Amino acid sequence: MALLVQKYGGTSVGSVERIEAVADRVQRHREQGDDVVVVVSAMSGETNRLVALAKSMQEVPDQREMDVLLSTGEQVTIALLSMALKNRGLDARSYTGSQVRITTDSAHGKARIQEIDTEAMRTDLDAGRVVVVAGFQGADELGNITTLGRGGSDTTGVALAAALKADECQIYTDVDGVYTTDPRVVDSARRLNKITFEEMLEMASLGSKILQIRSVEFAGKYQVPLRVLSSFTEGEGTLITTEGNEDMEQPAVSGIAFNRDEAKLTLQGVPDIPGIASKILVPISDANIEVDMIVQNVSADGTTDFTFTVHRNEFDQAMEILQAIQAELGARGVVGDAKIAKVSIVGVGMRSHAGVASTMFKALAEESINIQLISTSEIKVSVIIDEKYMELAVRSLHSSFELSGTGVKAEAE
Amino acid sequence: MALLVQKYGGTSVGSVERIEAVADRVQRHREQGDDVVVVVSAMSGETNRLVALAKSMQEVPDQREMDVLLSTGEQVTIALLSMALKNRGLDARSYTGSQVRITTDSAHGKARIQEIDTEAMRTDLDAGRVVVVAGFQGADELGNITTLGRGGSDTTGVALAAALKADECQIYTDVDGVYTTDPRVVDSARRLNKITFEEMLEMASLGSKILQIRSVEFAGKYQVPLRVLSSFTEGEGTLITTEGNEDMEQPAVSGIAFNRDEAKLTLQGVPDIPGIASKILVPISDANIEVDMIVQNVSADGTTDFTFTVHRNEFDQAMEILQAIQAELGARGVVGDAKIAKVSIVGVGMRSHAGVASTMFKALAEESINIQLISTSEIKVSVIIDEKYMELAVRSLHSSFELSGTGVKAEAE
Repeated sequence: MALLVQKYGGTSVGSVERIEAVADRVQRHREQGDDVVVVVSAMSGETNRLVALAKSMQEVPDQREMDVLLSTGEQVTIALLSMALKNRGLDARSYTGSQVRITTDSAHGKARIQEIDTEAMRTDLDAGRVVVVAGFQGADELGNITTLGRGGSDTTGVALAAALKADECQIYTDVDGVYTTDPRVVDSARRLNKITFEEMLEMASLGSKILQIRSVEFAGKYQVPLRVLSSFTEGEGTLITTEGNEDMEQPAVSGIAFNRDEAKLTLQGVPDIPGIASKILVPISDANIEVDMIVQNVSADGTTDFTFTVHRNEFDQAMEILQAIQAELGARGVVGDAKIAKVSIVGVGMRSHAGVASTMFKALAEESINIQLISTSEIKVSVIIDEKYMELAVRSLHSSFELSGTGVKAEAE
Repeated sequence: MALLVQKYGGTSVGSVERIEAVADRVQRHREQGDDVVVVVSAMSGETNRLVALAKSMQEVPDQREMDVLLSTGEQVTIALLSMALKNRGLDARSYTGSQVRITTDSAHGKARIQEIDTEAMRTDLDAGRVVVVAGFQGADELGNITTLGRGGSDTTGVALAAALKADECQIYTDVDGVYTTDPRVVDSARRLNKITFEEMLEMASLGSKILQIRSVEFAGKYQVPLRVLSSFTEGEGTLITTEGNEDMEQPAVSGIAFNRDEAKLTLQGVPDIPGIASKILVPISDANIEVDMIVQNVSADGTTDFTFTVHRNEFDQAMEILQAIQAELGARGVVGDAKIAKVSIVGVGMRSHAGVASTMFKALAEESINIQLISTSEIKVSVIIDEKYMELAVRSLHSSFELSGTGVKAEAE
């Protein structure tokens, strides 16, 4: 018997049949004695339909009114799910974000939750009711409807779990957990039973398809055990939790992340003097271009090469900016390449396992893959390589770190 | 320069183009200096779509959740219209029933408005904003979303006009006003420039297709000038107001109403003793059958015939009830007829014009139409005739009372 917050995304409530399936699952949990708060998204397709309507009224729709419009999507789902639950003889009550008093700031379209009043929910749970809450939405102090931005239903789920001190926040989606890498690239990719919040964040390129990064940060901050599981199949999913299942040997590497959305730019022969990095990056960030990796090596002849990566869509714009400031900075030249891929190994275990990086570099060398850039964090090593070698690199690393599930380092299923 | 509450029904906001047309109209009023509060319904078809979704979840959908679901329909429209207004450079702000604080009782699906807080609307109007309010909905004291029942958007419009002391409540619909009778039956039927609340109520068979009776009662009670006009064409529509445009001769009859939805039942030879009427009608009303006309003539031989009309759909059920109580009441027999029509002449003018009823009976006699039942109120005379003569009777009366617009009794257009 536990208090569970279950969040169901758009595809999980995408039809009458899918909503019925959610109601069945909630019923099973109730029969096991669990208390359940359900957070739902809009039925899949609905948000796009509403956005299209809005754009036909106003090219750049007013943000306050957009939130009024979009919030109807989840409101439809909470009503339908509550009816399905009542049809099964369960007592249920729906709440919009405003009704359950999820108070946010007034940043329409990307509001942040400030406070949640749990009183009504507690009363309902104590009375044996299932509480059904519209995800993705709240209201500011003046009562204006706000939305948390796309994917914000995950954030609602985690925030409710934190506020209610739930035993677990279960995120139901269309995949059955977090994998050691993308199963479409590596056949033997294995579902992880457990992963830490930090690893999940670093696995962004995989994880962002499953969970909004912001909700993972939020869950980590408030220590809410988060479980990703499928609403289409039965299974334990992947538990995202704070570090430390002490009685199990931690594998050095938990997963392989990758993406080919980036492009690299290098300003060559920059004078190696204080303040040069900010002189390069300020005009980039002024143009609202986000920078991912930044690499600068030690200087040789009083000059250095300064390299960074941006999203591939912003490569041309970033190039223009660098060319414009090149002379002023006294740099020798500007070069760039959009045909690159980033491959990362991620694992909290590498903190205590020496030689993880060298194993990575050796594996890539054995495949004759040249490493263009290296960047490391405490639990991640990322390399930039030619994009054509990406799949090869991922498979090679997945095998080298014995992630396929038979090695001693793998967790028991 | 006036304060107008404009209500637009489902067909008037049924598409992006129709919403654009509403925005254009509001803009013209703003340019004339009017302050405008707009009340909108759900886009046509949307409510039916939502009801179908609900019924697929639960055969008899939970009423609280049904209101949560249905209220999204108008919420979509307020957002879209506000965007369209902003796109025209007008400042606008949308409000759900709950946000504008239309407080109702908790009778889900048929809630009644208890109080409206006009403060936010006043502030917006003073700041030059168009206020856009979701019709048909409110919230009870606990914050539960309620709906006023189908057609409730008219009630919202009238209630807002009353609370704001608006100069006029304009109900935009797909007809351009109230006619002397149905133009499909009488070619020369004429739009009335003006009609009284009482006449409008008595014209139910015509009026109910245009306005919810409840909103007319409400407007009459709070003396809100109500105007019915078309959102598809330009025109003055019909003003529904308290009696008395003193400087204009009041015509004896304003319009001809009719319907063939009724059936008549007669309990023959009932002992003419006190309490007999209630003994007949209590079992009828216990079965939730609504009775329209009730006619009992003077007794002849100590017994009388008791006749009443019900909706045609409830004819069989009412017959069974009468047959069951016939013996107990000592009645001689039960007869009934569903092939009848009710035709009424309506007009406040008949209060002061003698001979209106006799003109009516003479007109019908000239067409050899037999009158089966007669019932009168202060401003209406209704007769029941064989349904096959209905159109003939309506045309004959329309002509006899010179309603076609050329006679001296007609109002100037």
